Amino acid sequence: MHTYEQALQAGKQFLLEHDDYLVVSHVQPDGDAVSSTVTMGWLLSCLGKTFTMINEGEIPSRMRFLYHADAIVNMTEQPPERKFKAIICVDCADFARVGLTRQYFEEDAIILNIDHHPTNNGYGSVNIIKSDAAATAEILFELLQLFDITWDKDIATAVYTGLLTDTGGFRYANTSPNVMTVASRLLEHGVDGPYLAQTLLEEVTLPQIRILNKALSSLQMSEDGRVAWVVITPEDMQECGAANEDLEGIVNYTRNIRGVEVGIFFKVINDNAVKASLRSAGKIDVAALAQTFGGGGHVLAAGCRLEGKVEESVEKVLKQVNTQW
Amino acid sequence: MHTYEQALQAGKQFLLEHDDYLVVSHVQPDGDAVSSTVTMGWLLSCLGKTFTMINEGEIPSRMRFLYHADAIVNMTEQPPERKFKAIICVDCADFARVGLTRQYFEEDAIILNIDHHPTNNGYGSVNIIKSDAAATAEILFELLQLFDITWDKDIATAVYTGLLTDTGGFRYANTSPNVMTVASRLLEHGVDGPYLAQTLLEEVTLPQIRILNKALSSLQMSEDGRVAWVVITPEDMQECGAANEDLEGIVNYTRNIRGVEVGIFFKVINDNAVKASLRSAGKIDVAALAQTFGGGGHVLAAGCRLEGKVEESVEKVLKQVNTQW
Repeated sequence: MHTYEQALQAGKQFLLEHDDYLVVSHVQPDGDAVSSTVTMGWLLSCLGKTFTMINEGEIPSRMRFLYHADAIVNMTEQPPERKFKAIICVDCADFARVGLTRQYFEEDAIILNIDHHPTNNGYGSVNIIKSDAAATAEILFELLQLFDITWDKDIATAVYTGLLTDTGGFRYANTSPNVMTVASRLLEHGVDGPYLAQTLLEEVTLPQIRILNKALSSLQMSEDGRVAWVVITPEDMQECGAANEDLEGIVNYTRNIRGVEVGIFFKVINDNAVKASLRSAGKIDVAALAQTFGGGGHVLAAGCRLEGKVEESVEKVLKQVNTQW
Repeated sequence: MHTYEQALQAGKQFLLEHDDYLVVSHVQPDGDAVSSTVTMGWLLSCLGKTFTMINEGEIPSRMRFLYHADAIVNMTEQPPERKFKAIICVDCADFARVGLTRQYFEEDAIILNIDHHPTNNGYGSVNIIKSDAAATAEILFELLQLFDITWDKDIATAVYTGLLTDTGGFRYANTSPNVMTVASRLLEHGVDGPYLAQTLLEEVTLPQIRILNKALSSLQMSEDGRVAWVVITPEDMQECGAANEDLEGIVNYTRNIRGVEVGIFFKVINDNAVKASLRSAGKIDVAALAQTFGGGGHVLAAGCRLEGKVEESVEKVLKQVNTQW
């Protein structure tokens, strides 16, 4: 069994002993995935290595301002012309999460696996896994301490982005004392925290705000005030010009109402199917609730799919909630 | 000229040399005011002093969970029966901010003034003013280091509350490296950061969410997408059961839309008066804008009052914005 410190040293060795690397992260990259990819790219360039950064898909537009994020190749648009032997996977909970990028791994590829997900099974040749890290960015910050490199605002900004997004702006339960200490060090390197919070957490698009408005207009509460829910239909989506990603976070508005224990977002798929996203304020296990409908998730955040008309689905879920008090 | 360290030492001396204190903060207390008041009360009880904490008004309900917040006396309801000689004013930018509590100061009262507002003129007998502190709580954290006291979760929670609320959840420009270091230390003392973020920053009441929905339903954008605005009428307020405090933060929804440079919240007062709250994304000085209508504020956040019907007022303000590009 290796300790975390030994793993960091083995990672350092891996980064020193090859000359040419492929850096990948998970499909549908989030803030921490992009942050980790460009941070690793920056380290490799500091070490004088050649490297290629690819992702199966597109980098979200709100992260493109990051140092070297434009150098992450969308492999669907610009497939690499060769395969790679030394691979670095960042923020990939399991190997399948690298998606189609694996076709650019040599058959005898060796992999450095850096991740913070507790379910990571250590699929790499070298593994740096710290499951109590809030973000892969937090692990990379510690890995970078082993190298004689000069921090600047750009790279500190990249690392801060991973911390900020994976902790929901220092609000989730993973916001440890170490997260705040690392954030403090990064701010000392000149990170513009308010700008990042605005760009990455607060900025919304017009379709997002329109669909939020639609959802809030449909808000209903149970008589006892413990359950709140909203409904969005395909017609609402079309009218607002909204895509699925624009729905993110809407369910929180239901759960955040004072006194509400369960907040639910019902998304009508068609006349006979509804998706429900469930959020709990703490008293109710919504994963168990979702499981009764064949869904799943976490204690505080879960989801399920229901067959039937939306009115029936709402009734079914509310009835089930009422058995849980 | 005293250094900050000398001021802290003088403050320590003040707290040691008397036996009985009155602790006050500003009228309409916010998170930092309540945080600072109870933190000071806790320190005085550690020192074995007698003390009374009062405020001109009520403590906001969402802060009443704080350790000893229920011991802060609303002087309108329970006027103290005597006056005090040794006064501690926390988070009061100027002396007038203590409001009606001053009637309980002896004529020859001596005041310890602890504050982070840059405009504080040092009205105390002893002054601890650090204008680059994000919150008075941050100064109190440093003052507490001078005493041999044992931190626990309750008092760390009180201090964290001031930091969290005065930095908008670690998102405002005052979120310095020191803020994050202090936050880290407080989390080590067992603060439940996610609970505080939920209770103090994310929780909304039903009237709040209803009036937000009304406002978003009125959302309009200029043709070039650089100005967004919403309008709330007295009828909306009544229909939603909303009070003025429920409007806080709504203007940010307009400013947070991607591409928007100026976000405006128009609140109709009556048929002939409108209040406008202005927010800038950075390019436009909304204080200057507000000044042309007799208002004022900061570069990024300002307000003014306009005479006339709301349609005319909207037109006037938009016209003025268009002269500013």
